[in-house]
Amino acid sequence: MSNEQLQWWVTNFHLPFEVLGTLAFAFSGLIEAARKKLDIVGMAMVTAVAAFGGGTLRDILLDRSPLFWIANDWWIWTILVICGLAMIFFRARHLEFTERAMQWPDAIGLGVFASGGTMLALQAGTSAIVAVIMGVITSIFGSVLRDIFTNQVPRAFTDHQPYASVAFLGCWVVVFAHWLAWPAALAVAVGALVTVAIRLAVMIFGWRVPSWRV
Amino acid sequence: MSNEQLQWWVTNFHLPFEVLGTLAFAFSGLIEAARKKLDIVGMAMVTAVAAFGGGTLRDILLDRSPLFWIANDWWIWTILVICGLAMIFFRARHLEFTERAMQWPDAIGLGVFASGGTMLALQAGTSAIVAVIMGVITSIFGSVLRDIFTNQVPRAFTDHQPYASVAFLGCWVVVFAHWLAWPAALAVAVGALVTVAIRLAVMIFGWRVPSWRV
Amino acid sequence: MSNEQLQWWVTNFHLPFEVLGTLAFAFSGLIEAARKKLDIVGMAMVTAVAAFGGGTLRDILLDRSPLFWIANDWWIWTILVICGLAMIFFRARHLEFTERAMQWPDAIGLGVFASGGTMLALQAGTSAIVAVIMGVITSIFGSVLRDIFTNQVPRAFTDHQPYASVAFLGCWVVVFAHWLAWPAALAVAVGALVTVAIRLAVMIFGWRVPSWRV
Repeated sequence: MSNEQLQWWVTNFHLPFEVLGTLAFAFSGLIEAARKKLDIVGMAMVTAVAAFGGGTLRDILLDRSPLFWIANDWWIWTILVICGLAMIFFRARHLEFTERAMQWPDAIGLGVFASGGTMLALQAGTSAIVAVIMGVITSIFGSVLRDIFTNQVPRAFTDHQPYASVAFLGCWVVVFAHWLAWPAALAVAVGALVTVAIRLAVMIFGWRVPSWRV
Repeated sequence: MSNEQLQWWVTNFHLPFEVLGTLAFAFSGLIEAARKKLDIVGMAMVTAVAAFGGGTLRDILLDRSPLFWIANDWWIWTILVICGLAMIFFRARHLEFTERAMQWPDAIGLGVFASGGTMLALQAGTSAIVAVIMGVITSIFGSVLRDIFTNQVPRAFTDHQPYASVAFLGCWVVVFAHWLAWPAALAVAVGALVTVAIRLAVMIFGWRVPSWRV
Repeated sequence: MSNEQLQWWVTNFHLPFEVLGTLAFAFSGLIEAARKKLDIVGMAMVTAVAAFGGGTLRDILLDRSPLFWIANDWWIWTILVICGLAMIFFRARHLEFTERAMQWPDAIGLGVFASGGTMLALQAGTSAIVAVIMGVITSIFGSVLRDIFTNQVPRAFTDHQPYASVAFLGCWVVVFAHWLAWPAALAVAVGALVTVAIRLAVMIFGWRVPSWRV
């Protein structure tokens, strides 16, 4: 398989996972909005923030313009359609079930956005540590902003189950692959795969991050 | 009346309403600062955030530079003078009265900023839906950031009285007028008028947005 | 002493104070993270936000790119090392002692960042009042964002002990020195000195800002 073919496969293989991850993040916003009994506007905003907040903050910090959801506005329509459907079909008794069902897609989102964000930063010419931080920001700040908008201490900061720290590890895989001069799409795919695999292991085996002894 | 004359009239007709709307937003910040017993610094910051937060976020998201209040710094002086006067003259017994008195100017602010933000985005070349979202952000994120800074769930997200959704409708009017190739100032004026009219109807007749049945 | 020599002395004299101030801000984040029992990720994020939040917001508002911590990524390593050491050595019984010990470096941070932020804005060509606001934002928004991220009303807004208002005064000193065409480094040093001196006086004599009579 030539390099171009590889690139093509990995790129197109990437999109469904990105969509799946975004949906998982969006649903996490939707669930929080329902818990806090927000109205339709709050629901749409918190859903959008959960889905796009991380990537938006990354783009602002890197001074990338236009923002990805301004350049690809079908993302906005997707959120609006999800909110409309949720208004019609979503009920209190679905909340817990949805949250459980979203754990796996959420792990995929974590991997895809952490790796993708790292690569975007590397391609913008940042140093390794900045790229890793950008990857972590891309993958977790949707949930951080979601929690700030609903007036809670961000769960990503208190969870004690490795989440952002898993993304942190996966981002270094991308940096390492980039340093080995692998094609970008492959580096992202491998980084995402490692992140998802570790995150699933964390969920299955119940690993914990070291605690403060404060 | 020629096109230039029309443009001139609508533009100059616009400014007093913009000032009135900004004052209403600023006072909403002032009131919240008084409720939370912030000191003079908190008062100035929350007042400024309530007045300028929406436009600032819009400019950052659209990568417009310099920000409108950096380019027109008399806005800052206005806020500082308001805060100074409030320190001297404002008392607890004025809170409720001020809040009621500000409902009408606030509706004007909603219309003016929603329409103006939409037009700015359209002129920056965004698609229709992005322009509408920018209009909504311009008009409501001052109040959203005000509530986040004072540690509350944003009222714009929980109110169940149509506010942002009214702005959303009004923004589409601007997009439609722009598509009809109306002069920008006229499109903004009509969009603002429609928004204000619907918002006043909402307040008078007590309309509600559809509720979650969660 | 020639102008160049003066410049050299003041510039190099500046760095240790900047580092000291950043450390004080970082520790304020660390302490808050410990109080709220955040995990290691939350600790790193809140520490980083407290240390860099003000300068980052200033750079975004002024559309300066790249951000200072993207251009100088050893800042990030410093934060990570601090968090690592804190995980190992920091205990609950150290909290109060650390907070008291940090009051003086914190005053230095206030002065250095307020003056530095003002000068950066002036050099970017803003007007005097915008430069002063940027100085205040640089010096206090680390703590504001720290408190928002840990779900509290920002202490800088409720403290009634002059903090941001002291920075506000010091920023005007920088503007005045700049207007007198003093060399930038000297203007910053004098502005910082005035700010630190007033802040220490505030702490020693227990001065208060005027209260709301609401």
